[in-house]
Amino acid sequence: MFTLQQLKQQYTAYAKQHIFDNQPTGLYEPINYILNLGGKRLRPVLVLMSCNLFSENVEKALPAAHAIEIFHNFTLVHDDIMDEAPLRRGKPTIHTKYNVNTGILSGDTMFAWVYEYLLKVEPSLLKDIIQVFNQVAIGVCEGQQYDIDFETAAEVTLEAYLKMIELKTSVLLAGAMKIGALIGGADAEAATHLEEFGRNIGIAFQLQDDILDTYGDPKKFGKKVGGDIAQNKKTVLVIKALELATPDIRQQLLQLLSTKPADEKSKIKAVVAIFNQLEVKEQTATLKEFYRAKAHYHLDQVAVATEKKAALRGFADFLVHRTV
Amino acid sequence: MFTLQQLKQQYTAYAKQHIFDNQPTGLYEPINYILNLGGKRLRPVLVLMSCNLFSENVEKALPAAHAIEIFHNFTLVHDDIMDEAPLRRGKPTIHTKYNVNTGILSGDTMFAWVYEYLLKVEPSLLKDIIQVFNQVAIGVCEGQQYDIDFETAAEVTLEAYLKMIELKTSVLLAGAMKIGALIGGADAEAATHLEEFGRNIGIAFQLQDDILDTYGDPKKFGKKVGGDIAQNKKTVLVIKALELATPDIRQQLLQLLSTKPADEKSKIKAVVAIFNQLEVKEQTATLKEFYRAKAHYHLDQVAVATEKKAALRGFADFLVHRTV
Repeated sequence: MFTLQQLKQQYTAYAKQHIFDNQPTGLYEPINYILNLGGKRLRPVLVLMSCNLFSENVEKALPAAHAIEIFHNFTLVHDDIMDEAPLRRGKPTIHTKYNVNTGILSGDTMFAWVYEYLLKVEPSLLKDIIQVFNQVAIGVCEGQQYDIDFETAAEVTLEAYLKMIELKTSVLLAGAMKIGALIGGADAEAATHLEEFGRNIGIAFQLQDDILDTYGDPKKFGKKVGGDIAQNKKTVLVIKALELATPDIRQQLLQLLSTKPADEKSKIKAVVAIFNQLEVKEQTATLKEFYRAKAHYHLDQVAVATEKKAALRGFADFLVHRTV
Repeated sequence: MFTLQQLKQQYTAYAKQHIFDNQPTGLYEPINYILNLGGKRLRPVLVLMSCNLFSENVEKALPAAHAIEIFHNFTLVHDDIMDEAPLRRGKPTIHTKYNVNTGILSGDTMFAWVYEYLLKVEPSLLKDIIQVFNQVAIGVCEGQQYDIDFETAAEVTLEAYLKMIELKTSVLLAGAMKIGALIGGADAEAATHLEEFGRNIGIAFQLQDDILDTYGDPKKFGKKVGGDIAQNKKTVLVIKALELATPDIRQQLLQLLSTKPADEKSKIKAVVAIFNQLEVKEQTATLKEFYRAKAHYHLDQVAVATEKKAALRGFADFLVHRTV
């Protein structure tokens, strides 16, 4: 059994050995740029941890782990174009450093390479793994569309919001866990439990993301605290607040979240005051704990010695309770 | 053995049965829109024709044929964004009818669905077919990058240009032929000959495309005649002209192709006059015939009764000599 740190090192070494040296450089240089910006390497490490529950040979999961990381980065490249985001991990996004066309095309190329890496799995697993991965890829695209639709929707239900974050964020974590498990030799039942573990951790992870965006420590948090409020995003905090507010407060909140004033600070302050009054942070934390508990339940069902699962459990809790 | 018309009907019926009715509609409506714009259905029909050389059961090739058609349309959607093209098959492009973000995201979604359809092949063929297809997908992206690079390159050699169109256009026809052959039960040698048939037909097809863009009948041709010249594209006509021109004419042509005047028409007229003087249309036609002959050679090598290959030969000749 490897430690999280050892698995991360193994993945990083593999990724370094697989930097693209293909032609034309105009296409592959941006791809290497985004893949080498760093990031948490959360998804490939989850593939390896999941594999490692069933097998000491985690090397055989490295190509799939890399496929998952390339796919994740492809979605970031295209999402950043759609969001007109100038920065990613504190560095210029591809479409800012190069241009939009380069962003579109290098993203597409990364997507094609995902399958090249998936092809390296044992032939007997190929069909299952591509099937799992395709559902992930389609789900992520659908989730992104729901996210776009919600920007202009008058109101979003909690149910619809949870479905959106499940598709946009969680299905990839779920798929990473399932693929890792299958490569490790898990049976269908265990693989499904790990998939559900990933799905629920992913939802909890995203709820924590929403909390941090408003309540994060400005000294620790990488992004601007209150950014979601400034952009009038319909996060879980807003949805919960609208659900709980009196008609008066509701009107006040809808009014605040329909403007983009020059003075962002007092808008953010006013919205946070409403959130605090309605205790939506606590409500969201309760919801998050519900998904964390669900994730733990599925991990508990995996027929593997409890101590083997400790690292995964700890890593998941860390992700869900993280402050950055 | 089916006629071309029967195969096209079979494909069209299959495509109709597989219109996306998935959610969210904001994502799938644009996909159905582009897939239903019509088009020649050239690539899926080639998959079926290739399969039909070896098997009467062409139904088993329908999902792969659809995968190839979805992939082709995905590349059109993203290419049209990159080229800022307002029209496709005489109708608004996705990014014009909807917006750029919808174009990016529905393109990505189509790409993911390609693999869903490829997964429907016999499991024993899956690895080979995905391998063939991935090389196509990566090649097409690389070809598109070379095409972009050539826009700002001082000069492009004929060799580099042919390599670019091979990647951007031919590898997909080559892949379509090979995948169809493999599904039909061809051995490796026959599949490779059909792949080479597709590759060479593809190059001839693209050379014809270059000719049509400048010399097409405006009444028949879907796109704007002279569009390549207006956009200063280094097509084979330009490359041939620069190769053959006297220093004076060369300068004149380079000068014309470095501007984007409001009055496109007189620019197009001046460039066409130079092309005519240097007979580059005829030179390109000769080059096209070279690739057509090469394609025929490979088709001749396929160990199947000559009469079975007649339809494919005829269809290829039609493509290479087409006027629209």
